[in-house]
Amino acid sequence: MPTSTAIHPAPAAGGARAPRRTPRFTAGPTTLYAQLASVLRGHIASGEWPPDSDIPSIDELCAQYGLGRITVRQALQILAAEGLVSSQRGRRTFVTYSRDQLEAAPLFPTFAAVGVQTPEYGVKILSHTRTDELPPARWDLGRSAGPYMLVRKLDQSSGQPYGLSGIYVAEDIYKRFPKGAENRSKLVRLLVKYAKVPVTLARERVRVAAADFAEAEGLGCAMAMPVARVERVFCDADGRVVYYSNTAYRGDRYGLERDISEYLHRV
Amino acid sequence: MPTSTAIHPAPAAGGARAPRRTPRFTAGPTTLYAQLASVLRGHIASGEWPPDSDIPSIDELCAQYGLGRITVRQALQILAAEGLVSSQRGRRTFVTYSRDQLEAAPLFPTFAAVGVQTPEYGVKILSHTRTDELPPARWDLGRSAGPYMLVRKLDQSSGQPYGLSGIYVAEDIYKRFPKGAENRSKLVRLLVKYAKVPVTLARERVRVAAADFAEAEGLGCAMAMPVARVERVFCDADGRVVYYSNTAYRGDRYGLERDISEYLHRV
Repeated sequence: MPTSTAIHPAPAAGGARAPRRTPRFTAGPTTLYAQLASVLRGHIASGEWPPDSDIPSIDELCAQYGLGRITVRQALQILAAEGLVSSQRGRRTFVTYSRDQLEAAPLFPTFAAVGVQTPEYGVKILSHTRTDELPPARWDLGRSAGPYMLVRKLDQSSGQPYGLSGIYVAEDIYKRFPKGAENRSKLVRLLVKYAKVPVTLARERVRVAAADFAEAEGLGCAMAMPVARVERVFCDADGRVVYYSNTAYRGDRYGLERDISEYLHRV
Repeated sequence: MPTSTAIHPAPAAGGARAPRRTPRFTAGPTTLYAQLASVLRGHIASGEWPPDSDIPSIDELCAQYGLGRITVRQALQILAAEGLVSSQRGRRTFVTYSRDQLEAAPLFPTFAAVGVQTPEYGVKILSHTRTDELPPARWDLGRSAGPYMLVRKLDQSSGQPYGLSGIYVAEDIYKRFPKGAENRSKLVRLLVKYAKVPVTLARERVRVAAADFAEAEGLGCAMAMPVARVERVFCDADGRVVYYSNTAYRGDRYGLERDISEYLHRV
């Protein structure tokens, strides 16, 4: 593994606060400027650098973190591209992020959204493959009984991709879908409508990972950016898997909200 | 932003398959070797490179991806450190990852785990701060009515940190906790037990992000590695927030499983 280089910053301005702990910048998988961007993003998200306030100058940031001007400039360019800061003719850089923006920004593609198809929603079908089996490394719920139609697709909001899915739908049910319906409706919606045996089991598993190549390409994000990987299994009353999916959501577009009051009684 | 360099690999060996699309390696926030590791990890996770199979040699990988020997070696070192591949005296490198390992590995710190305290579980209290208000950028549920005790803590499993939390507990309830109980029990458990007005609302919000400096330091992971950020709010029957928390879980230790059958009826 690469060697690590700890850089001791000068004490932060405004000596009233306790001295800040030393960020550890490391030559490693993440470049120095991305690491610095991450630190500065933290100052903004925590409110330490409030909206409309000036952030330290490039020279001050260089001195504080012991990094070069190019690295600091690159970090600020990332924050500017993310809409967190803005510069006025190179003189001052100030925070343009507000809490309202944060609240407005995230998509919450929980399953609740299945029933609600907004005008912004779009789907791009990438491929169809007929297959006899579910993938071997799947979540082991229910009985695999093919053939299945594997549909690869991209969910989009206002034309921007946010979810890349591979979805196995029992072929006998898939064949009953009206022609072209999958281009307008989510597959789960169609599944529940056209299944002859009622769908009774529905489970979801969420994990967090760094985008692999296919995910980065499909979602239009950088490789190794955070994604949520969501696996969903639907079984019918006979215990047969009728729907199995893997979806990668862009980390910056993913969110899930849920009621956890049932757990209060188990405490 | 940095310039991008598309590298066109030679066609994959085994011409029966459709030609693989071109990975796009980019000079950017993620180093080339981390990007390549991400691509190769994808081959292993998908089963394209099954357990015990030999992977291509360093020379073959260099030719296939148009990358230098040092970059390819570094990528393989990452995979070896993750336990995905192993090398025999530099001659062959083979896949050591199995699905059983994957299934055994992830922690699922869903809320279901609150009631179950395993022998491996440990908690390290980092600080206590008395405060009159909840943070301004909180999830806007319930009524803030301080004072609160802000407890910063690290959840550990077998001594390895997996979750870093800042938890606000209504001070009047906190004061009723037995001395030292917070070192052994989760705070939610104590909250429900010692609250005078019953806790009736409990909600959770999950997002995905790149670890900021404080998270990387606390969780012992690299900056910008994926984390799950989980926000939880508990209110009593009077609508007062009695517990508010932010937790960052290491991405490689986070998982959530849930029943989503209620959504079937809304489809």
